[in-house]
Amino acid sequence: MQTRPLAVTLGDVCGIGPEIIAQAFRRGEASGCVVVGEVGVMRRAAAMTGGGLAVAALDRAADALDCPQACIPVWSASGLPADLLLAPIGQVDARAGAAAARCIEVAVRLVQAGDAAGIVTAPIHKEALAAAGVAYPGHTEMLQALAAAGGNAPPVRMLLANDELRVVLVTIHVSLREAIERITFDAVLETLRITHRAGARFSHPEPRIGVAGLNPHAGEGGLFGDEEIRVIGPAIVAARAEGIDAHGPFAPDTVFMRARRGEFDFAVAMTHDQGLIPVKYLGVENGVNVTLGLPFVRTSPDHGTAFDIAGSGQADPSSLIAALRMARRLTQAE
Amino acid sequence: MQTRPLAVTLGDVCGIGPEIIAQAFRRGEASGCVVVGEVGVMRRAAAMTGGGLAVAALDRAADALDCPQACIPVWSASGLPADLLLAPIGQVDARAGAAAARCIEVAVRLVQAGDAAGIVTAPIHKEALAAAGVAYPGHTEMLQALAAAGGNAPPVRMLLANDELRVVLVTIHVSLREAIERITFDAVLETLRITHRAGARFSHPEPRIGVAGLNPHAGEGGLFGDEEIRVIGPAIVAARAEGIDAHGPFAPDTVFMRARRGEFDFAVAMTHDQGLIPVKYLGVENGVNVTLGLPFVRTSPDHGTAFDIAGSGQADPSSLIAALRMARRLTQAE
Repeated sequence: MQTRPLAVTLGDVCGIGPEIIAQAFRRGEASGCVVVGEVGVMRRAAAMTGGGLAVAALDRAADALDCPQACIPVWSASGLPADLLLAPIGQVDARAGAAAARCIEVAVRLVQAGDAAGIVTAPIHKEALAAAGVAYPGHTEMLQALAAAGGNAPPVRMLLANDELRVVLVTIHVSLREAIERITFDAVLETLRITHRAGARFSHPEPRIGVAGLNPHAGEGGLFGDEEIRVIGPAIVAARAEGIDAHGPFAPDTVFMRARRGEFDFAVAMTHDQGLIPVKYLGVENGVNVTLGLPFVRTSPDHGTAFDIAGSGQADPSSLIAALRMARRLTQAE
Repeated sequence: MQTRPLAVTLGDVCGIGPEIIAQAFRRGEASGCVVVGEVGVMRRAAAMTGGGLAVAALDRAADALDCPQACIPVWSASGLPADLLLAPIGQVDARAGAAAARCIEVAVRLVQAGDAAGIVTAPIHKEALAAAGVAYPGHTEMLQALAAAGGNAPPVRMLLANDELRVVLVTIHVSLREAIERITFDAVLETLRITHRAGARFSHPEPRIGVAGLNPHAGEGGLFGDEEIRVIGPAIVAARAEGIDAHGPFAPDTVFMRARRGEFDFAVAMTHDQGLIPVKYLGVENGVNVTLGLPFVRTSPDHGTAFDIAGSGQADPSSLIAALRMARRLTQAE
């Protein structure tokens, strides 16, 4: 039984965010959600996707739980650019960047005030954020800073999940050379701790974690690189000493297949593509991005703003719908 | 219509090679093949897997084409260790290593003499080869040297294939750090040339080739590494100028999914695991390894000697069977 709504951010209003949100409501997949954004933007999105949906501005976020299905409830974010609707669809625009950031801030405040159960974010655009003078390169860093609220930012990790695989990444958006440098004992151990703590939300309170090596054949005993011996193996040993059910390091080319078959509840990948290749291999539609380590639930679809098709009403809401379902499941597990 | 047999090497006789070969014959999947090895070893393997198979030593390799299904035709390799059958199953043994290497040599001679159409190799064990004083770390290097026959070794590349994906690797068995150094303009361009030339054998005389980047998001315009800009992109441009239908570099996390969906006939991976994770993700049973660039067809199953189950008769011949089918198809396309 849901007692608080999920806060869904608009994302970049020049991208497909508002449209896929409208589509999710249209399909009955966003009940119990409140859109953090702007009424006019959602009215436009409702029209773009075929009309027939009402848009209502709420006074209390909790009222979203009683909203009829054909209605999109909006929590009007204060401080949005006045001429936001003039930002041209399909283009980088500072107003859209500023609004995207502001909606995230407001959504975090709703959660921190106990008025929302968790956050689902629609896609933002890095260049639009930069054009608006927003210092964060993406959602994760911004959410981390907002969660810190002046204190230390909590260590977070990206989890990618679909129906059959959950992968947690040690490194993400850096070059492969830089990623290798960032795969330290501490980074791997922290990833295992965060993954272990996240297990309960995924109905695996003592999750079995399969850890990929970095090198082919996990280094083949040091023949093809020694990161497994120097760094990853010792971090797994340390994690096990803390009661974490971590295993490996295993050959990267089979650990994800083994996790998919049920041998592990989570797979830990050393690099972005090591983890995302298997998650996306069967199709990107159902991939969900979950930020682990935050003091609240945050999920997002696993795609970008898709400027090339924004405004056409053709965007596929499947990944957002998967993110909404995942957020509902994770918040109900609290 | 097959006019010459395929030469199937024994592999390491202490591993599962002889058993899976016997199983392939038992299932009628090895018709038109001749085993390059030793009659006693194949008799033992036939018994291990349930008996009821005859083993016949051939005088002429071509007689394999007329062999009845319940019979395994063997081309006795000269120069095998006399006490090969004493090498203990499931263990590293120099005799098994020496025999494995010798069978490969004899198989290559059969092909070079025009007596066999191509080679399918059963798994060998690196330590057993080393124990026998064989200088090559694996099949690929050994086949390359035998193909050179005193001249220059031809550049070769590993292709991994299953029913839905064909991936060619720029780098293979080196550490990830070393792999990054080996991803040069020449290495990528040569990979594209070899892939292009191989297309015809796979019924794609002008193959569409999708090339993965090295870094997340293929470097995101230089933000996450510049190998795409400095090396991979220019090699693709040079290949296109030669008439090769190469595309990319694309984000590594989606190019294999795109190839699986039919957008490309071959995907080119920069590293071992980038390419093998998607090939193996749906299961390793049907993966086939093909060496491109040799003057003859060579395929192999995509697994090792499996010493832990050797001798039990339980080994799964699926990957070998897939390798036999692939070799048959590739030699008939000649």
